[in-house]
Parts: sequence; structure tokens; C-alpha cells
Amino acid sequence: MPRPGVLESEKVYDITEYGFRSTLELIEGDADALKAIRGATSSNASYALDEIHLLAPIQRPPRIFAVGLNYQEHAAESKMTVQVVPTVFMKLSSSVTGPDTEVILPKNSAQPDYEAELAVVIGKPGYRIAARDWEKHVFGYTIVNDVSARDVQLATSQWTLGKSFPTFTPLGPAVVTRDEIADPHALDIQLAIDGEVLQNSNTKNLIFRIPQLIEHISSLTPLEAGDIISTGTPQGVGLGRTPQRWLRDNEEIVITIAGLGELRNRTRAEA
Amino acid sequence: MPRPGVLESEKVYDITEYGFRSTLELIEGDADALKAIRGATSSNASYALDEIHLLAPIQRPPRIFAVGLNYQEHAAESKMTVQVVPTVFMKLSSSVTGPDTEVILPKNSAQPDYEAELAVVIGKPGYRIAARDWEKHVFGYTIVNDVSARDVQLATSQWTLGKSFPTFTPLGPAVVTRDEIADPHALDIQLAIDGEVLQNSNTKNLIFRIPQLIEHISSLTPLEAGDIISTGTPQGVGLGRTPQRWLRDNEEIVITIAGLGELRNRTRAEA
Repeated sequence: MPRPGVLESEKVYDITEYGFRSTLELIEGDADALKAIRGATSSNASYALDEIHLLAPIQRPPRIFAVGLNYQEHAAESKMTVQVVPTVFMKLSSSVTGPDTEVILPKNSAQPDYEAELAVVIGKPGYRIAARDWEKHVFGYTIVNDVSARDVQLATSQWTLGKSFPTFTPLGPAVVTRDEIADPHALDIQLAIDGEVLQNSNTKNLIFRIPQLIEHISSLTPLEAGDIISTGTPQGVGLGRTPQRWLRDNEEIVITIAGLGELRNRTRAEA
Repeated sequence: MPRPGVLESEKVYDITEYGFRSTLELIEGDADALKAIRGATSSNASYALDEIHLLAPIQRPPRIFAVGLNYQEHAAESKMTVQVVPTVFMKLSSSVTGPDTEVILPKNSAQPDYEAELAVVIGKPGYRIAARDWEKHVFGYTIVNDVSARDVQLATSQWTLGKSFPTFTPLGPAVVTRDEIADPHALDIQLAIDGEVLQNSNTKNLIFRIPQLIEHISSLTPLEAGDIISTGTPQGVGLGRTPQRWLRDNEEIVITIAGLGELRNRTRAEA
């Protein structure tokens, strides 16, 4: 049975005894819930990171909004033009997997690809949020690998299903609360496969920044606690390389974002 | 507090006493759950339809898959080409509303539009379902109005957010179980506004039929109990008319599908 925990100083504190059955419940409680468990954690049962197996910090987010073409060079390599408003699509929550799990490369795609992304976790819900109020609605940040079956994604105009096979959304290794990140628009972001660096950028290069994304999405649909906004990927994806480079069986993908840790997954080709 | 019910011979039977807290729980139980309540209903507390207020039969479906351009004439009027595989996008479940409620026309769209659609409700979950097995996975059918803010929908390539404002997915008035519909591909489908018939077709004109839709979607992501597949709209939407015709404040939209009843909603322009 998975249990929610809080990581502080390399120790994970079990927070079930505070009445939280999941990390999502903690996020729904937002600042008050965080206050309740802080300080108190030192007296709780704790575990070293190597004693436990981390799952995705939110097993089934209410929704995963993902942003396309949000780094200039990635839009160029995808041969798509940047829009005047953000291009937002969904990834299905059923595709979430954790750190240190397998990404299953489905037998019905010949073009599985990776995308390293900074993801925002919504805390306080809201509809029609003004850009200047964005921080009040952010619970924290994490890493998403927006795995994409390019042939399926681009077979029609709509991208969701090609990006939502089971295990296509590695999420984690943890949600870092917003107070820990001084500026989410100044984070090095890198993706390597078996040690070879394939994406290497900084979130300062985002075209639409987090305040604009929150304002835009919430102008159309109310944001909920635990919603994920994955902010888009920088250049270097397999689709844009010459020659194109698709994920293969038994590769290790490691995404690193400064301050958010490493999200590490191994590929496995479906039999 | 909403309660789930079963409609038989113009009477609605409350099924909470059978342990179902929602219609979704009944659907998750599929054939066995239906068997358990059948026959027994005659002894339950019952209500005439005019004594109660119907809500959407599934308040928050796990997912709403919607199919674009699935009638030839509608694809033509939208000036889009039909693909060799179905064009599938999501509508957010937060946009669901019931029959006899208001559809709110949001202030940030100047082009709200209607789309009458036959919707399939999944019962038995499944991944990689063969087309020939489709019926085993269908719990029943209902009506969806795929309300669409065309300016928002078409501002980028991805359609979901322009179709997911609050109240943009009227659903109902009921889920008709699959045994009640001899052939879902032979149903008259009609939409009228204030008595003027604007869409008028038959589900025999669907390009991708229900077996193909279930096979296609489930080849990419596992289907879950309570998932909705809205099969697409026939010609006659406001976008395709000359001149174009957008929804206005205080209009009554009525969608009728043979055997599934009427889905009736009134528009209200947001202040």
C-alpha cells in the first residue's frame, strides 16, 4: 500500500498519521496542510531514501495540461510555428508512472520519443486567475517526461492519444514546494540517454512563462488542486534530430532539472 | 445530495439501497450490477419523472473521448479532410452538465457553437479490444452536446480547451443500456434551437463506427468503466453555415436521438 511522505534533509517522513492518505490530499490542503506537518515531521517515523521505493508523487493527477512548442528552437526543429496563445493539449492521467520504473515502448508505434519538461503542480484552485497572482496557485514543481509516439501523435491533428500510452508520463521524483525554488524561470534542464546528453537548455528560454500559462488555461477552465501543467520541452528531441532518433529497448533516460532532482526511467519494448 | 436511479416505464427507482452511491458505481459493476437491481426495482421507492430533477447520469466521467470529423458532410463544412484513422480529442470532465441546465456562453468567446452527438458509455474496461468484441465493452448510450467555442478551439492546433469551458458538455438525459438499442448505427439524430432544426442526420452516416472507435482508442490507452466516447457530429453546426451562426443568450437547444430521448439546455451569456 503506497503511503505519502515528505522529504527533508535526505529523510522521508511518513505523513499518514496526520490524516493524509495521499500526496494529493496534502496538496489539496495547500499552505495550511504544509504548516501542519512542518516541524512535526522531526518526531515522525522516517526512512532513508534508499530504504524505500518512490512512486509518482501524484499517482493520478486530476488533469495533466501540457504545452506544445514552448521553446523557440524546439518549435523550429518540429517545423511548427509558435502561436500567439499557448498550444495546450492533455496527457491522460492513466499514463503516469513514477521514477525508476519502465517506460513501455508500445508495439503499435515505431517512433517513441522523449521530452524533458518542467512541470508545475497547482495547489489552490481557481478560475480566471490573473497572471500577477500566479504564485498563490502553485503548490510546487516537478519533472515530467512527455513521452510521445510520434507516428500516432501526428497521424491526426490531435496529439493526446499519441502521448498517453501507459507509462508515457514519468513524473517525479518528488514535488518540490514552491518556497524551495527561488525562480522557476532560471533552471537548467537536461536529458541524457545512457549518458549521452540530448537536451540541454534552461527554463529562461520558455516562450510562455508560468504566470501566462496559469492565466491562459484558467481563463478557459478552472484549475484544480493537483493539476499538472507541463511547460513544454526544449530542442533536442528525437523527432528533430538528423537522423531522427527513436527510443529503443533497454535505454536509460535521465532528466535533470536544477533543484528538482533526477527523473530516471528505463525503456522496455513491448513484446 | 444527488442519488442514482434507474428509469423503467416512466418511473425512476432509487438504487442507493443496493449500495450504489452513483451511476458510475453501477456502470463499474456492469452486467452483474444490472442483474442485481433488475426485477428488484419494482419494490423500491419510485418517483415520477416530473417529481425529480435529473442531473447528468455520470457527473464526472473518468474521461470523455470525442471524435472529430466523423460525418462526411461535417468534415466538408469544417473545411477539414477526413483522416485514415479517427481524430480523437478530449473534452474535460469538469465541463459536464446535465439536462435542463444552462449552458454558459463564456465572455471570452465570440463564437460559441453546438454539436449534437451520439455518445457511448463504456462498461467493461479493456486494453487492445478487438472490433468484433465491441459490444461486450459498451454499457449503454446517451446524448452529448459537444459545445465548442470556435475562436478558442481554432486559435491553436489543439481543440480540447475550446471545448471544455464549464457547462460545455451537456450529457443525458439518461444512459440507455445497450440491450435497449437494437442498432446504434441506425438512429435519427437531430438538433433544434428554439424549434428550428439545424442538424438532422442518422448515425448510419458515421464514418468510423463504434466497433472501430473502441478498437482504435483502446489500442492506445486502456478504456475504463464510465468513459464516454462521443462519436462526432453531423453537418449543420454554426461554424459551417452561411452566414455562420453562433449561440446567443437565452436560446433553447434540444438534441433528439431516437431511443435516447431529448437533451434540452438553455444558453446564458456570461455577464
